Amino acid sequence: MANSPSGDSLTERIVRILETFSAERTVQTAAEIGRRAALPSSTAHRQVDALVDAGLLERDDDSRVRLGMRLWELALRGSDALRLRQAAMPFMERVQAAIREHTQLAVLEQDEALFLERLSSPDSGANITRIAGRLPLHASSSGLVLLAFGSRDLEERVLAGTLTRRAPETITDAAALRRTLADVRRQGYVIAPGSIEAVSTGVAVPVRDASGAVVAALSVVLPRGTPTAAALEELRAAAAGIRRALAADRR
Amino acid sequence: MANSPSGDSLTERIVRILETFSAERTVQTAAEIGRRAALPSSTAHRQVDALVDAGLLERDDDSRVRLGMRLWELALRGSDALRLRQAAMPFMERVQAAIREHTQLAVLEQDEALFLERLSSPDSGANITRIAGRLPLHASSSGLVLLAFGSRDLEERVLAGTLTRRAPETITDAAALRRTLADVRRQGYVIAPGSIEAVSTGVAVPVRDASGAVVAALSVVLPRGTPTAAALEELRAAAAGIRRALAADRR
Repeated sequence: MANSPSGDSLTERIVRILETFSAERTVQTAAEIGRRAALPSSTAHRQVDALVDAGLLERDDDSRVRLGMRLWELALRGSDALRLRQAAMPFMERVQAAIREHTQLAVLEQDEALFLERLSSPDSGANITRIAGRLPLHASSSGLVLLAFGSRDLEERVLAGTLTRRAPETITDAAALRRTLADVRRQGYVIAPGSIEAVSTGVAVPVRDASGAVVAALSVVLPRGTPTAAALEELRAAAAGIRRALAADRR
Repeated sequence: MANSPSGDSLTERIVRILETFSAERTVQTAAEIGRRAALPSSTAHRQVDALVDAGLLERDDDSRVRLGMRLWELALRGSDALRLRQAAMPFMERVQAAIREHTQLAVLEQDEALFLERLSSPDSGANITRIAGRLPLHASSSGLVLLAFGSRDLEERVLAGTLTRRAPETITDAAALRRTLADVRRQGYVIAPGSIEAVSTGVAVPVRDASGAVVAALSVVLPRGTPTAAALEELRAAAAGIRRALAADRR
């Protein structure tokens, strides 16, 4: 019923339209959206109009289009992302206050690490991550934790794929990655210097829910060469606190 | 093309499905969603399937459905909500550290105050607001600021409507509300004791962007009877800082 001649559903077309927005591209015309989403111009204009009518997109005086506050509200209001982030936030603030470097919370999404939250101070060092941004599993400390505690299926899929070098010390060899993941499972943390950026060391631990399942990775990004022991201790205490908060929040 | 017999578009149906989720209702079956969204059962099942296929909803082992992380990601990645919140966050943390009560950021959305962020400490007092939750404009300190600095059209619409009593001191008289809004514009802040909850006093200031337009309200919620001067001073400094951050972020 809602299928186009090319067979993609309207739902898929809406996703393709939303996908054209990014941190670098927050405002577009309907024509630009159509081109970037590879939709016929008339389809793009009609669908953008419908999304504006529904409040999921907003149009300004110059007929340029942005993501709507209504979309933000509907996506967050009943989301696990918000619940997890809310449970984690007080503990992340403690880590941030103690270590004074970037503190981040990531979940597994489509074989990548998706960042739900990042706290930083003005004097924190370099950091490539962004809220609602993603990093490869094999090349980030958060990703290594999510991968180590993910399914065997996920691990085999990542190991069979291309392990792209993102920085001098990214693990690009499958056998080395397999060993690292075994280490992460045994130790319960990862310290990854120069994995995603040459100038930084990521330290990450798993965050478990009440049942013991790993639901997220909590990490700090330290300038390369900074001692990691204090950060690791803070992260472990925070992960334990988040687990208790998630258990109390369970319904 | 995508219209149902009843004339609502598929886009509207997706919005109605997303609207059935809330902070109190994060997991539902397709049948429950259909009932709550007033959709025929077959339509609800088909549309939920399409949303799951697109990753906007996620289905668990018990065939129950949740909002997807992918929806969260797409809604946030290129959003003004995220940019505004990111610009405000360091300043909100400073307010929170100094005052140690709830610190909140709200925007105007569909004639209500929509809360983008709320920072709290475990020892903060009562607070009715929630992230991605809303409060009426006339009954909350954030709402009074957004209303005072909103359009004349908005003000007339709210004044012509019912001013529902939410707490003992909610302003429910149109003439009194008009006077309060004039005061807020003149003073540049509002102090609203017992407006939304009898036990709390809201203190709110406008947040302006580089052009001087009011884009948000920044507020703290104090236990009733707490002196408000320190909070007001912190809020004003924070609003000025956010304005500078938004100007630096402009593109």
